[in-house]
Amino acid sequence: MKKALYLLPNLLSPDQDPAEVFVPAVAKTIESLDLLVAESEKEGDKFCKLFNKQLPIHLLNEHSTEDELKELASLLSKKTMGLISDCGLPCIADPGANLVHLAREKNIPIQAFIGPSSIILSLQLSGFSGQCFSFMGYLPRNTQELIKTLKQLEKRSYTEKMTIIFIETPYRTKKIIDTCKTTLRSTTHFCMAQNIGSSKQKVISMPVGKWKKKEFVKEKEPTIFLFSSP
Amino acid sequence: MKKALYLLPNLLSPDQDPAEVFVPAVAKTIESLDLLVAESEKEGDKFCKLFNKQLPIHLLNEHSTEDELKELASLLSKKTMGLISDCGLPCIADPGANLVHLAREKNIPIQAFIGPSSIILSLQLSGFSGQCFSFMGYLPRNTQELIKTLKQLEKRSYTEKMTIIFIETPYRTKKIIDTCKTTLRSTTHFCMAQNIGSSKQKVISMPVGKWKKKEFVKEKEPTIFLFSSP
Repeated sequence: MKKALYLLPNLLSPDQDPAEVFVPAVAKTIESLDLLVAESEKEGDKFCKLFNKQLPIHLLNEHSTEDELKELASLLSKKTMGLISDCGLPCIADPGANLVHLAREKNIPIQAFIGPSSIILSLQLSGFSGQCFSFMGYLPRNTQELIKTLKQLEKRSYTEKMTIIFIETPYRTKKIIDTCKTTLRSTTHFCMAQNIGSSKQKVISMPVGKWKKKEFVKEKEPTIFLFSSP
Repeated sequence: MKKALYLLPNLLSPDQDPAEVFVPAVAKTIESLDLLVAESEKEGDKFCKLFNKQLPIHLLNEHSTEDELKELASLLSKKTMGLISDCGLPCIADPGANLVHLAREKNIPIQAFIGPSSIILSLQLSGFSGQCFSFMGYLPRNTQELIKTLKQLEKRSYTEKMTIIFIETPYRTKKIIDTCKTTLRSTTHFCMAQNIGSSKQKVISMPVGKWKKKEFVKEKEPTIFLFSSP
């Protein structure tokens, strides 16, 4: 049987019902795997348990070296591999694309499965245009650079009618919202999409002018931020 | 019962198995709908037939007027609505966000469901970075403007390490590929993701230098284009 690389979805939150996340082809595919590539041992194990399957777990994350990636690549033509992210879809906001790139060079068949993307769900729920959008990953941590970047991206969102999407680690949610409130124009629409896919999901979407009157914040929850010209 | 707006997925291609696209919650939700908002009567009908359900279909597409949108908005607090796109996820590369925006203003609960996004699947399958990416919709039709835009976006992809994604109507696939071959740098990686989600799915991803040696093209197939710095 021809070896293959399968890009598999993962839950967005531990309280999601697996039956509402994994289409039947995912369970079938997991039966055919020789190994699983995950961002962490812990999340790899949790994923395997969802399917009552034991699989060797190989790591691919932001700490992976060139050598470790090469070692993974050398397995591509010998093993049928599944690739997952700690949450949601692999190759989106994680380093999974490096493995897909190597698989393409080796002509390994690659298949991707439907699953939950917190970025796309946030974009849909925000009410902001999905005709043109950018996912920017993490913005700079330094406050002055963050302000500069926000202003540049806001200008782009007006000029190109583009929705801007970015993420930040949960404990910096308040800082991001406070900085956006004081940096972005009052007319710019700003959205906070929190705990997407979980029972605690909360989406607040309104002009910056209204955000200024709101004393928010629930800290330490996974949050996606979006803004858009009115 | 509180009225709601449900953002429902649709098939990417008629040959997709609905069991592999719709999670159980979608069928359950469709039972509760009073009406369906679709881009076209034809695709709305097809969607209803998939679930053996008859629903009044209201249109929301690029031809919808402000008045038609207002009429839809007035129904939001009276009817439980489903919103679909002709294919894939609503509010991505379609005008569905306008309705979500109005629902947010009226505090109508909004729920989005997992489903297939050809944009995200293409990005995953391309092997290009998903840490930072832009979906640009359609690029200009005029050749000179197209070339100018491609060059600007290529510069951005190098400066910001950003993957650029765009679409075009199927009959212009050859023109796009030919223009990219002559406009983009030889080192830039270019990907054509065709018939995503269908049994005819085909993804070709390689540097522009290699594309130049390839006499392609299968025309008239739905295609997504991506490029990225090496």
